[in-house]
Amino acid sequence: MQLDGRSLIAGKPGHATDKTFHAISPSNSARLEPSFHEASAEDVDLAMRQADDAFEIFRQMPASARADFLDAIASEIMAAGDELLQRASAESGLPIERFQGERARTCGQFKTFAALIREGSWVDARIDTALPDRQPMPRPDIRRHLVPLGPVVVLGASNFPLAFSTAGGDTASALAAGCPVVVKAHPAHPGTSEIVARAIYRAMKTCHVPDGTFSLLHGTGAEVAQTLVRHPLTRALGFTGSERAGRALFDAAATRPEPIPVFAEMGSTNPLFILPGALKNRAAAIAQGLKGAFTIGVGQFCTKPGLVLALGGDDFSAFIEQFRAQVRAAAPGTMLHRGICDAFHAGLERVKKIPGVVVLAESDADADPAKTQADPVAFATDVETFLLHRELREEIFGPYTLLISAQSVTELEAAARALPGQLTATLHADGTDLADFSDLLRILDRKAGRVLVNGFSPGVEVCPAMQHGGPYPATTDARFTSVGTAAIARWARPLCLQGFPENTLPDALRNANPLGIQRTVNGTLTRDPIA
Amino acid sequence: MQLDGRSLIAGKPGHATDKTFHAISPSNSARLEPSFHEASAEDVDLAMRQADDAFEIFRQMPASARADFLDAIASEIMAAGDELLQRASAESGLPIERFQGERARTCGQFKTFAALIREGSWVDARIDTALPDRQPMPRPDIRRHLVPLGPVVVLGASNFPLAFSTAGGDTASALAAGCPVVVKAHPAHPGTSEIVARAIYRAMKTCHVPDGTFSLLHGTGAEVAQTLVRHPLTRALGFTGSERAGRALFDAAATRPEPIPVFAEMGSTNPLFILPGALKNRAAAIAQGLKGAFTIGVGQFCTKPGLVLALGGDDFSAFIEQFRAQVRAAAPGTMLHRGICDAFHAGLERVKKIPGVVVLAESDADADPAKTQADPVAFATDVETFLLHRELREEIFGPYTLLISAQSVTELEAAARALPGQLTATLHADGTDLADFSDLLRILDRKAGRVLVNGFSPGVEVCPAMQHGGPYPATTDARFTSVGTAAIARWARPLCLQGFPENTLPDALRNANPLGIQRTVNGTLTRDPIA
Repeated sequence: MQLDGRSLIAGKPGHATDKTFHAISPSNSARLEPSFHEASAEDVDLAMRQADDAFEIFRQMPASARADFLDAIASEIMAAGDELLQRASAESGLPIERFQGERARTCGQFKTFAALIREGSWVDARIDTALPDRQPMPRPDIRRHLVPLGPVVVLGASNFPLAFSTAGGDTASALAAGCPVVVKAHPAHPGTSEIVARAIYRAMKTCHVPDGTFSLLHGTGAEVAQTLVRHPLTRALGFTGSERAGRALFDAAATRPEPIPVFAEMGSTNPLFILPGALKNRAAAIAQGLKGAFTIGVGQFCTKPGLVLALGGDDFSAFIEQFRAQVRAAAPGTMLHRGICDAFHAGLERVKKIPGVVVLAESDADADPAKTQADPVAFATDVETFLLHRELREEIFGPYTLLISAQSVTELEAAARALPGQLTATLHADGTDLADFSDLLRILDRKAGRVLVNGFSPGVEVCPAMQHGGPYPATTDARFTSVGTAAIARWARPLCLQGFPENTLPDALRNANPLGIQRTVNGTLTRDPIA
Repeated sequence: MQLDGRSLIAGKPGHATDKTFHAISPSNSARLEPSFHEASAEDVDLAMRQADDAFEIFRQMPASARADFLDAIASEIMAAGDELLQRASAESGLPIERFQGERARTCGQFKTFAALIREGSWVDARIDTALPDRQPMPRPDIRRHLVPLGPVVVLGASNFPLAFSTAGGDTASALAAGCPVVVKAHPAHPGTSEIVARAIYRAMKTCHVPDGTFSLLHGTGAEVAQTLVRHPLTRALGFTGSERAGRALFDAAATRPEPIPVFAEMGSTNPLFILPGALKNRAAAIAQGLKGAFTIGVGQFCTKPGLVLALGGDDFSAFIEQFRAQVRAAAPGTMLHRGICDAFHAGLERVKKIPGVVVLAESDADADPAKTQADPVAFATDVETFLLHRELREEIFGPYTLLISAQSVTELEAAARALPGQLTATLHADGTDLADFSDLLRILDRKAGRVLVNGFSPGVEVCPAMQHGGPYPATTDARFTSVGTAAIARWARPLCLQGFPENTLPDALRNANPLGIQRTVNGTLTRDPIA
């Protein structure tokens, strides 16, 4: 496929503006063709107006038709074939095999949301039938279900060019809810974004979805994103990226005349606690697992364990020795782009300067700057130093982790209490560990959206029970998830219909329950029709 | 009961600060004893710290024990007897009979939430069991349920001193979710608030609920509220009141280092459309119903219909004549306090000055300023004037409504499109009206949280299907309701537990399903245990 390089607005090319940029292959610093054109303010406005127009039609499509559309997107992404995988690999420096898996996840998400809306119960239909004889006042007929918010803006992440980007979980869940989507492509992988956007557009044509339902805009700085979040027709925004960028979007949304929700997933240090029983029994296995967890994807996972805490002593010292061997043997990897690589090294320099922090181990191999590579590295410190230096609580994106030894349970709990909000917190625990450290567990379950026992936080399952979101600054809204079927709830609001004649009700709220969904009827959960 | 006049913090009196104020009886402008002491900054801090400490215990209480506590609050409020009704009536100018109904609603809310959490399915438990043999990677065991956010601040409304105040729906739903509550009492009814707070405290003692679970703070200006919303331990805030005050709280919450959700219900003009068939068939009944709807509670309902729209012509003229007679016969009423009464009259003066707006009818009786009374009044204008003057879209709190005649369906739809977000929108429709005006309906269902056919918006049922919340500026978050059982969702977030041993799981997530709640197990809704 010949890449065009312009934004794709409701199926038509955007302006060929003078502001152009190229993707750079991080593996060899080569410029990738073609040049891409940043969207103009007019492009943004057109995309939002087309989205709002399309919403009037899209929100009325039966859920089954919307489900077919989601399935068609999955098929079209597969049909984009190797070209997509190659471009994604070239733009990100991540291997082709990784993108085979990530593509499967991306398509799987669309199919999962298709199945969810085909089943239909997610709209949380509630019906309280009229009580005309109630004293002192009759009760009217009241029915409620979830309806889509309207046009949604998605700002994808650089670290998952497929699964958290143009056709990532935000886009899939918003379309599933019935919201048109305007994506601002991540400038590190504009070609991947264009290939995916064209696949979505082909699915739109096949499924007779109105053109404005999806647009892709290009942009390198904050300008396009800021124009999008402030646009009066934007109803909500999904973002995955840095805390600084996420907060700027949140602030812009909150200061609008009409504030809108922003779901920003901004990062986390994902603390991992190794409790005494586990440390004694499973040091080697944990050391090996931890090495994998902090280096997978060159440490560029939002769930990378960046802090490892344990009680100091012989067992922890023995663990550290095993972990050092793992780190030394770990290979350097190409990071997503020069900016991330520079930020990683700057972060390491900052931490190195803190008195009381030492380099524990680094990869024996040398990172190649021409390949935008980073060396896996582990640092170590104690709780006292950790508590003293707030910057140690901040995420360093890349293959870095910090081991922290505590002199006592009190110190361990103090370190846990000092943590900001997290996507995840992990405990490695054997025997009586969990019972012995129940206070620690109770600190962590207020800090994190997901608490793991004897696992590693990377690898976020797409399933109904997943929660990928946690207290600030992990995300801007701990009440919602960006992964798993519950992610659809971000893009909907309840609409209550009172006294509507039966024949004017949407299917979800009709007496006969033609969709066969589960509903709350007069307070009782049921799939039965109303007699 | 002897009123104390100090804040009530975790069961103990707050500081007897120098900043004091009195409630004023609006019916006779008399000062009501005793004097009340504004909470100090130390009082606020103590209340929040006690709430946070109590949270550690309160959140661990079984739901059944929390349900007993809610039921006990209802009993204790009833046990407060006539003294409560009398004080509420004296402080608000509303009749005793009104408070008999409002008290029943208040206690009913606690019982409804008690039943909801006793049943237990509201925690939305989701379980995805482990798939150890899955390829290419095993799936871990992942379970998720809703957990309480932490200490909640409630700022009650003046217009429902029982049902939307100290022990109103915000307090009931937050306690039901497992969140401690710190209420800032509305300064118009501090005595009512103290009586209710003492009832809650008695229920806490009976049910062995930790003292910090509930506190009441007094304050007249914005200072106490602003200190509360900025307090680092505050996790969420519920508010009912003006748009200006609600937005100030929202802004304060959004600019915190760690933003928190604010659920502000700020008001609405609740447009009511009378469609041609209904206008022809039921003019007299609608005129009578509308009179009741805009004068009930002296027009001090957030769901008061403040805009009435119809196509001009003989039928609307005939309706207007009947409505004028209704308005003339309407009695003046005592407003909640001097400030509201003054704001009402200032609002009328503003509207009167707009060219093209006329006074249609006002009560034949004279309002008595010594009794803080307002006369019901209806104004009239046309769509052109309505579109030209933005201030006509703003709520005027009190017994005022504005009739707007449209020259065409296009004009009617233009007026609908110009509306800001609403709690409710109403259509009176007979015969083919709904089919003929489907475009209008589709404009309104994007504007409002609740759309009514052939009803009147005041009277907000406490039931599962209720939605009391709508697009901004009706509320700050259209995705949530402040009335009905779904109100509990405001105070909870999902917590995901991965890989937890069965014996360490909360009851809601155990294989055996000891609570018998409905859960989503591997994608299927069921009450069955996991084999």
